[in-house]
Order: sequence, then C-alpha cells, then structure tokens
Amino acid sequence: MTTGVTTGSPQRSPAPAVRVGVLGAGVVGSQVIRLLTEQADELAARVGAKLELVGVAVRHPTRHPDVPAGLITTDAAGLVARDDIDVVVEVIGGIDPTKSFLLTALHRSAGVVTANKALLAEHGPELYAAADAAGADLYFEAAVAGAIPLIRPLRESLAGDRISRIMGIVNGTTNFILSAMTDTGAGYPEALAEATRLGYAEADPSADVDGFDAAAKAAIMASIGFHSRVGAADVHREGIAGVTAADIDAARRIGCTVKLLAICERVRVAGNPAGGDNYTEAVSARVHPVMIPQNHPLAVVDGAYNAVYVEAEAAGRLMFYGPGAGGAPTASAVLGDLVAVARNKIAGGRGPRESAYAALPIQPMGEVLSRYHISLDVDDRAGVLAVVAGAFAEAGVSLSTVRQEGRDADASLVVVTHGAPDAALAGTVARLAELDAVHRVTSVMRVMGELR
Amino acid sequence: MTTGVTTGSPQRSPAPAVRVGVLGAGVVGSQVIRLLTEQADELAARVGAKLELVGVAVRHPTRHPDVPAGLITTDAAGLVARDDIDVVVEVIGGIDPTKSFLLTALHRSAGVVTANKALLAEHGPELYAAADAAGADLYFEAAVAGAIPLIRPLRESLAGDRISRIMGIVNGTTNFILSAMTDTGAGYPEALAEATRLGYAEADPSADVDGFDAAAKAAIMASIGFHSRVGAADVHREGIAGVTAADIDAARRIGCTVKLLAICERVRVAGNPAGGDNYTEAVSARVHPVMIPQNHPLAVVDGAYNAVYVEAEAAGRLMFYGPGAGGAPTASAVLGDLVAVARNKIAGGRGPRESAYAALPIQPMGEVLSRYHISLDVDDRAGVLAVVAGAFAEAGVSLSTVRQEGRDADASLVVVTHGAPDAALAGTVARLAELDAVHRVTSVMRVMGELR
Repeated sequence: MTTGVTTGSPQRSPAPAVRVGVLGAGVVGSQVIRLLTEQADELAARVGAKLELVGVAVRHPTRHPDVPAGLITTDAAGLVARDDIDVVVEVIGGIDPTKSFLLTALHRSAGVVTANKALLAEHGPELYAAADAAGADLYFEAAVAGAIPLIRPLRESLAGDRISRIMGIVNGTTNFILSAMTDTGAGYPEALAEATRLGYAEADPSADVDGFDAAAKAAIMASIGFHSRVGAADVHREGIAGVTAADIDAARRIGCTVKLLAICERVRVAGNPAGGDNYTEAVSARVHPVMIPQNHPLAVVDGAYNAVYVEAEAAGRLMFYGPGAGGAPTASAVLGDLVAVARNKIAGGRGPRESAYAALPIQPMGEVLSRYHISLDVDDRAGVLAVVAGAFAEAGVSLSTVRQEGRDADASLVVVTHGAPDAALAGTVARLAELDAVHRVTSVMRVMGELR
Repeated sequence: MTTGVTTGSPQRSPAPAVRVGVLGAGVVGSQVIRLLTEQADELAARVGAKLELVGVAVRHPTRHPDVPAGLITTDAAGLVARDDIDVVVEVIGGIDPTKSFLLTALHRSAGVVTANKALLAEHGPELYAAADAAGADLYFEAAVAGAIPLIRPLRESLAGDRISRIMGIVNGTTNFILSAMTDTGAGYPEALAEATRLGYAEADPSADVDGFDAAAKAAIMASIGFHSRVGAADVHREGIAGVTAADIDAARRIGCTVKLLAICERVRVAGNPAGGDNYTEAVSARVHPVMIPQNHPLAVVDGAYNAVYVEAEAAGRLMFYGPGAGGAPTASAVLGDLVAVARNKIAGGRGPRESAYAALPIQPMGEVLSRYHISLDVDDRAGVLAVVAGAFAEAGVSLSTVRQEGRDADASLVVVTHGAPDAALAGTVARLAELDAVHRVTSVMRVMGELR
C-alpha cells in the first residue's frame, strides 16, 4: 500500500519507514510483535509511514518460534545502540540493566516506549533528563493500569485543569484476592492460594500483595497529575496481607467494601508561617486497604479489572475503567504510544516533556487526614464505652459513630472516627490495645469518605 | 514567573506568548476565560509559553462584566481574521456563520479548538480539509461527552489497536429523564417537565430528546474510531419521546434498564461476492433506546452523567465516565485541547490529522442485527401463542424467550427475539399489530446482548 496518504488530504510523498527495536518477547512483547505484524497496513495508515520491526532482543532465542529468526538477538545492549533504530520498545522490566539500555537509546535521540513502572518510579527523573537533553520522546502509557488510557488523559486532556485527586484500583492481583474474599468469605491465605492456582498471582506474590506494584504506579500518577517529582520511596505503602475475613465483614456492616487503593491527593498544608488564609500545597501519595462505600464507582470494580477515579477542579469526577494487565491489553497501550512517537519522529516534533514545575513537597503519612474504622472485643460491662471514648478524646480525635454489640462472654465495640491526622489515629489504636477492658482489636482499617 | 522552564531540563529562552481569541462568552466561554485567567501561571508552565487572551467575540457586549472590556468585540469575523491570533477557541455553536469563522481561522493556519459537535458531524470533512491544507490543528475533545477524555484516547491511546465497538450514554438530558422514569415510575411527559424545571432540558428539548445531539456525537465517535467518514445523516436516530412507563417496567421484568445509547460498531458484512470465508467490513452508527442488562457498566450511569464503553481487539473492554456537559467540565476539555494546540504551535508541529483511510461504508439500519423485546396484549385463549410465533417464524426470526401472563379480560405475551436483521423485526411487529388475536402492542424495544 502507499503510505502517508490520508483520504481527503493532498497527496504527500511517503515518509520513510520508522524502524522499531523491541526488548523482550514475553507475554507483552509477543503481543506487541503480533500486532505490529497483523495490523501493519492499518498502523502505516495511522502513522503516515510504515512501522518496521528490525530487531527483537530476547534471552533465549530458541523459545520464540513466532518471531522471525533474522530479527532475534540476545544482544540487547547492541540493539539499543543501533543507529538505524528510531524507536525502542522496552517490555523486559527490571531496573538493571534495563535503565542503561533506555539511557543508551535516549542519548542517541531514539524514542522510547516502556511499560516499566518500577524503573520509572525509581529513576524517572534521570530518564526524563536524558530524553530532554536529546530531544527524544519517552512514553509509558502501559506502565499504569494496562490498556486503560490514563497517562495521556492526565498529561494532555486535563492539561488545562487542576487535578485534586487520583484514586485507583491499579493492581489486578490484589483486587482479585479482595473480590474473592468478599464474595466467598474466604480468608487471605485461601484467596491468595486460589489466585496463585488461577495464575492471577505469581509464585512470589510480594510485588503485588505488599503494594510495591501499586506504589510505583501511584508515584507515576502523582508525578504527572501534580507536576511534581514523586518517587516510589515517597509513597506510603501497606499491602493486603493483613486484611482478614473480619475486616471484610466489618466493612459490609457499614455498607462498604474493602479495596486496595493507590491514592494521590493535592492537599493544603495548614500552619503556613505567613498566617491568615494562606496555605501551601503538598502531595500525599499512599497505597493501603480502604473501606469504601458500596455505591462508590470504584466499589463495583471486581476481579482483575483496574479503574482510576480522577477529580479535577473544572472537569469534576471522571473514571477510567478496563483491563489492568495481560499481554494483549498492555500491548495495546504500548502500540498507542509507539504510533504517537512514530508520528512525532516523522513530524520532527516531540510529545509533552516531563513537567515538574510545581515541585510540591510530600506530605508525611502521619499528617494525612484519615478516618478509621476500629472493631474491638471488650468487657461487657458499663463504663467500657466511656474508657474507649476517652482514649480518642485524649488524642483529639472525634468519633463519627459508635456501635456496641453485646455477646455471651464479652461485647464488641465498632468505632468510626471523623478525619484526624493518621499518626493520632494510629497512636490511639495502640493505646486502646493496652487497655484492660479491651480484649482484642479485631479490625482496624481506614475508611474513605468526606474528610473534615 | 519565567515561562518555558521545566524543572530538570536545560534552561531554554522563553517562547513568545501564544495568542488566543475566543468566540463566545456564554456558559462554556465564560469558564474558559476564567480558567485562562486564574490558572495563567500553571498553563504557562505546562505549555512552555504564556497563553494570552487577546479577544473575545460576543453578541451583547454589555452582558459580560467579567470579561475585560478592552478584549470584547462584536465582530467575530474580524476576530478570526486577525493575523496576530494563533489559536481560535469556538464555543458559540451553530452551523452558520460559525463554519465560515473556523474556515477563516484555519485558512490562515491558526489552530482551532471547538466544542461544536453539530458542525463537526455535518461539515467535518470540509473543516479537516482546510486544516490539512494549511497545516493547522483542529481539536474538538469537548464536542463529545464534555469533560470525559474520549477523542484523545480513541485517536491516540488506541491508535495501535482495532476498535470494534463504541457505545455510550452521551446525552445527559435524556439520561436524566430516563433515570427519573426508572426511579419514580413517571411517564415521559412528567419526567420531561421535571427535567425542564430543573434546567436539565431546554425550552425546546428536541435536539436532546429526539436524539440529534447524540447522533452528532455518534458520527464523530464512529469517524474517529473506524477511520471512516460518518456524518450525522449516516446515523440512524430514534429519540426517547416514545419511551413509556410500560417500557421501563417491561425492561425491569427482564433484568434490564432503558438507556438511550449511541452505538458505533465495526460489522462484518456477509455475502461478499468473492464467497468463502471472506467478508467486507462496514460501520453501523445508530442512536436509539435500548434495554441493557442491569449489571452492564453503562446501566449504573445515572442522571446527567455520561459514559462511553469501548471494545478493542487487544485492549479489551474500557469505560470512560464523567460529567457530559456543563460550563466548567466542557471548559476543562477545551483548555486541554488549547494546551495541546499551543504546544504544537511552539514546537512547530501538528497533532494527529483526520484519518479516514479505511473509508468503510455505512450499514443500513435494516441490516443491523438487533434483538427485540415485544409486549403484546392478546386474547386469552389457546392458539394465540402459535399464531404469534408463526408470524416470527415466517420472517425467519427465532425467539429467545416467550412469557405468557394471563389476566382477567385478556392476556399479555412478552417475547424476546434472537438477533435478526432490524427490518425483519420491524416488519414482524407491524404484522403482529394487525393480527385479530393481538389487541395492542404495548412495548417494543431493542435489547442489548450477545448477537448471534
């Protein structure tokens, strides 16, 4: 077919092909290569030039019968250094030596498309700086929420707005486990075992269940949404290993469901020395389990799906929903970026650069306004409620609801607080556990809702 | 502040300001002007240059106390012709003379940002051609689904994928009315009156309730999603004025809810003369009320909210949700486009052009595979079911479920068909109405579900 021709526009001479090298031919890479081949004509029409796959770096060359043998190499460092390659697609993951591969490509002004959230969350600034210095594109839609268009909406569609909050279910494994616990009443170990059996959890599930994956994504979303540098280490992180069947049940009793959320907020920091109505802003970025109301749009996102909820000053409340992982969905996001980078190459331009002009500081977790739900097993005698309430009052935490349920041997007390600094709440819970009247703290979890 | 500086990148000399003219200072325009002013510093940091508002064309200059008097003009034609204006933002709507204003701006290579769905759906090709000839940008995120990022995801994020279906609630007025009918059991006239009273419906509601607004948006979505030219006239259009309380009730009985959907599909057209497994593709674009399962993500989109559901080969099922109208949300989308066009101006590049290379034909509505739900009041006697079933069989339509409910005087029969060409179904319903045994056709509506 003739490339570069768009119906209704004047005929142009076909642009030269855009030459693509791919690092990795695993779950995502093989789908990228398949789509590049199967949809070659359509992609050429959209880019205005052919996308030509010229090399694929893999570790085990014999394991990829679908990739033309002539394209396969085990020399990834050599591939990224080839000066006839215009765009490098990186889907191997990992920090080292992947970072050096991408830096090599960027230094020689090749465009880079990556799905590597961990690398971006840890070394984003260094990669951005290399891209800027060389005038190269660095795109990474696939790094957050798989196929769901999110980076582009945050960075471009909402570029004329002020984002106040980004809140998402961005890890399918943990969402699958929590959904299973909710649906079946199973405990965490059983639900994890089932997820592993079905292939939703890896043999070593730590990256997912301990929240590392979600924290990397939170760092990326916060960086872009708030035009500040937020790294993985800036994100407060709690996983789901501590979530119990009792927590799930307690959530249901207050009309909530438990989700692991990545939460990025633009917050006002009080106590500005200048006084008056003045305030400064900061970014809070955190990953932890939360009880959210069952009628919240995020509450109905079940199984391995992802969804991200965005609040912006003018746009209001938006939600983006779709498959958060998987070879084909992730490859779709990679190819969307590849088309954009290739178009930029042909036009001689660049997409949006890193934008960290706001440089907002990170709010420490202890200062984040939280609401807690706490269930306690207590003595079934008069005066216990007063003792417990007193502990909260001492810490300056006001209570939203208190529910007392008598039982045979003892009683349970369910407390939901108003918003208070997280450190004050955590401190109070620790003190409650030491009270004689409190037998056991059966469930402690943050609750989402309007904070004071 | 110094413009053009991005943290972490080498210092660049500030780019000259990008000069913006706005047509209209109504509900959307006034919000665009407010955001341009209030967020001037942030926008400058994001664009890399100041966005300078240099003129606002209005009809009644005394009615806009918030707009600096020095910027106001009643001469829109003069404003768009000013060669010191880099980008024209159009938020006045209408076809004439708006089209000529935009053509004037494009002819002199100014970028254009518009929220005008009717103009794009009717004269998109002419505007695209003018933009292409001049190398100018034409952006219109705000034309479909207000603040919800949709055009950019369809055109850019999914540029490496094959979209198979786009299905959306894209008109807030009709969704509000249908939600009210569902929640309160009210009939259409009462629900419309309430919507008018609350300001959700205009004094002349035809553009909304007769589906014109949704059809224009369907035309735009289908054009972009399928890289083909689809105009408003190509979209089959049925509004909600015929939806009754009986329809809503009938939907509930089969676990569905009634929504007015804009549906754009890539369909395989059978009967290719070449025979064999070969087929050709076409586009179906239509707007009509549909019964959709209550557990479908679109079913829970209530009130004035919009949502668009997209299915793509690799990405899978995505959904985009948010406020579909209103001054501030629409202004957010306009400003996102304005930032993009301004960035392109500074970089000397252009965003994606019109892409109609696929040039798929339009599938006539009569050939669209539909499923129908039909309720009939019939004689309560043996043999009626056979007569009714015979009418469907004659037209080659197979039935999915038949439910008979006896009543005192007569009986009702509820039929849900399998997928069949729409014309065959419509013809059968017409014939049913003429049968002696059928007293009345009480409800006819298409049902969404897997088509054969």
